[in-house]
Amino acid sequence: MGVLEGNWLGYATRPSPGLYPHQWSWDAAFVAIGYSHYAQERAEAELRSLFSGQWSNGLLPHIVFTDDHADYFPGPDFWQTERNPYAPRRPRTSGIVQPPVHATAALAIYRHARDRDRAHRFLEEILPRLAAWHWYLRRERIRNDDHLVEIWHPWESGMDNSPLWDEALNRLLPEQVRDWVRADLNHAKPEERPSDDEYDRYVQLVKLFREHNYHPELICRVTPFAIADVLYNSLWVQANTDLAEICRIVGADPTSFERWADETKAGMRRRLWDEELSTFVDFDLITKEPICTRVGAAYAPLYAGVPTRRQADAMVDQLTRTVGVQLDSTTWMVPSFDPRDGRFRPTNYWRGPIWINVNWILYRGLKRYGFDRLAETLRRSMIELPRRSGFFEHYDPRSGKGQGASQFAWTAALVLDLLFEP
Amino acid sequence: MGVLEGNWLGYATRPSPGLYPHQWSWDAAFVAIGYSHYAQERAEAELRSLFSGQWSNGLLPHIVFTDDHADYFPGPDFWQTERNPYAPRRPRTSGIVQPPVHATAALAIYRHARDRDRAHRFLEEILPRLAAWHWYLRRERIRNDDHLVEIWHPWESGMDNSPLWDEALNRLLPEQVRDWVRADLNHAKPEERPSDDEYDRYVQLVKLFREHNYHPELICRVTPFAIADVLYNSLWVQANTDLAEICRIVGADPTSFERWADETKAGMRRRLWDEELSTFVDFDLITKEPICTRVGAAYAPLYAGVPTRRQADAMVDQLTRTVGVQLDSTTWMVPSFDPRDGRFRPTNYWRGPIWINVNWILYRGLKRYGFDRLAETLRRSMIELPRRSGFFEHYDPRSGKGQGASQFAWTAALVLDLLFEP
Repeated sequence: MGVLEGNWLGYATRPSPGLYPHQWSWDAAFVAIGYSHYAQERAEAELRSLFSGQWSNGLLPHIVFTDDHADYFPGPDFWQTERNPYAPRRPRTSGIVQPPVHATAALAIYRHARDRDRAHRFLEEILPRLAAWHWYLRRERIRNDDHLVEIWHPWESGMDNSPLWDEALNRLLPEQVRDWVRADLNHAKPEERPSDDEYDRYVQLVKLFREHNYHPELICRVTPFAIADVLYNSLWVQANTDLAEICRIVGADPTSFERWADETKAGMRRRLWDEELSTFVDFDLITKEPICTRVGAAYAPLYAGVPTRRQADAMVDQLTRTVGVQLDSTTWMVPSFDPRDGRFRPTNYWRGPIWINVNWILYRGLKRYGFDRLAETLRRSMIELPRRSGFFEHYDPRSGKGQGASQFAWTAALVLDLLFEP
Repeated sequence: MGVLEGNWLGYATRPSPGLYPHQWSWDAAFVAIGYSHYAQERAEAELRSLFSGQWSNGLLPHIVFTDDHADYFPGPDFWQTERNPYAPRRPRTSGIVQPPVHATAALAIYRHARDRDRAHRFLEEILPRLAAWHWYLRRERIRNDDHLVEIWHPWESGMDNSPLWDEALNRLLPEQVRDWVRADLNHAKPEERPSDDEYDRYVQLVKLFREHNYHPELICRVTPFAIADVLYNSLWVQANTDLAEICRIVGADPTSFERWADETKAGMRRRLWDEELSTFVDFDLITKEPICTRVGAAYAPLYAGVPTRRQADAMVDQLTRTVGVQLDSTTWMVPSFDPRDGRFRPTNYWRGPIWINVNWILYRGLKRYGFDRLAETLRRSMIELPRRSGFFEHYDPRSGKGQGASQFAWTAALVLDLLFEP
């Protein structure tokens, strides 16, 4: 609770003190889940503040900027989302999205509420916002009958420099002239962050979207980066299931969201399952090829009830034999990237380190499919690791040492969720 | 100004004291145009209040209900728009739309503002709302490449009982059991209002939309009433032109709205022009037949710059010889329906009476095409008639006598607009 308290800004929670001074989209959802157990009003305020940056076409931006911290890059003057008539003028925001965990967070607020009437009113208030957000993804981010939501930028995945994107990014040429300066390296070690080459390409994509004034119908046609990501689609399926439940609670029609969950679930089984790897894999919509790379987030479909029983058994069997790491005799966790792959980097962001949210998602998946012993091991490990090393952004999967930002909000929030769990 | 003052509720203006206690969509836009000349803040508040009822799919409801006046029918408990997850819970609203005059009103607020900086901020605030509203119509109300916006209910036209809808409504069967009671007859004479049979069918359509939880993608498939209306599409073309201008003022991208205006303009010329009648006519999208009925609102395309020069000349020539009425030696106006048609009723709502908004729209059209003398005659007539008869909802085209609601807000607002005009 001390970590969340330290990052509380009066109306929302920043992810950490130095590196991340604004409000991020999926961070806010995880943080709200943490608050939901002991600070109902603050959990509501967290989501309300995020949604104050929602665009009128439903887009929920990946960053809602606070007014100060002008040195953040890329900041609002770089994004220039005011070019798009659907963007709010205040607060200023980015022009891309992050994974949709928000309906899930809103439902958690209701389920854990001490004041149930207040929570009911909150659901009534937030439902049209959530519906518009889901509807944006459904309308603008699905290109065919596989019903897979696509991302147009590595930042949209939440796993910025994952090896999943290497091939797609390599198709972009480096910029000739760099007319901007990274700000993230003022607050973090270069070896824990994406490389300059990667950053170049991130910025190139933003410039492309900016040139098209953030109109999704145009970006969809010109983006060289379009991927159906396993983690994103898993969170989308579960969020639709949770949004349908919110509809039922407040007396609205849940059928669209139920259908959307079912359709994407079917599309994932059809298009993203890799029988040989015994797991789900991302799909590159530009090359029309699967991305056969093992990442920790590939097990997220368990969380959303996507795999068949047979698939789930094969996934977990393979997970324990390959990607999962035994830190010591009692601590078993899943790193962000396969340790046996040559590109594995134990200290570099999404190319190796352990992230608490990925493990929390896996934990829920293991429970859902009845892998109770492994789930319990994972739960104890997730509580033990930060107790030992502090509430960091990510952890070295060899030593358990904390890395990246310290006092990281979602790490604290999700550990709180585990502790409060009945 | 006294009329508007008397209808001001502290945050918005009701159309009139008795018959219309809530906030109506296109009334609010006309009223804001009136306020824009002398009460900038109130004009902004008027639109802001209306948009507080906007749905998260962009739909701008035709009524935003105030909390009291529970005797209004159909009230929020009849509409039950909470069935739709995109509807706000507060304020409660209806589930259909009215003509889109709102961008036009917002631009008027800016152009007439004493405090230009404040008006600029207001445009920045309202632009995403207006964009979402236009986008709803573009997405949900256009079924083919004619780009004509369609209405699904006579109330959506704003001209509730116009003879334009007779044939389409006659295809509906009367209800077997009437489980509701009209409230409008407590405040108005039956001969000035729609008939019971018409009201039956209005309510039937609402029930149909309610059954489908107000999901436009479903209603589009099942509605027995779908009409491409000349007045609605004319206002839509002009509103897109005005919204593009708002984009330019605040530095957003105007191209979509410019294109939408051009596409609908081309569709109107292609599909709605009737060479024989020398005017534009509505088109029934269910029977795929034009509705060859002469109404006063058929001249609205002049207002939006839709007709070619040749078409405009033919329209005005025909207008002065047929629909237009000479009340006395100086007063010439256009009634809502052709006086030579057997269904003409001079006291019955949209089946004959003179309405100020239709004449105001025509006045702007005449000026746009350079019919200066006729425009000036119309302008003087529109100022003279309420001066003589009071600010009524509509007027008898034989005697000029005021009818319907008294102290009618938009009549006062649009006369003010003419008086303040430079």
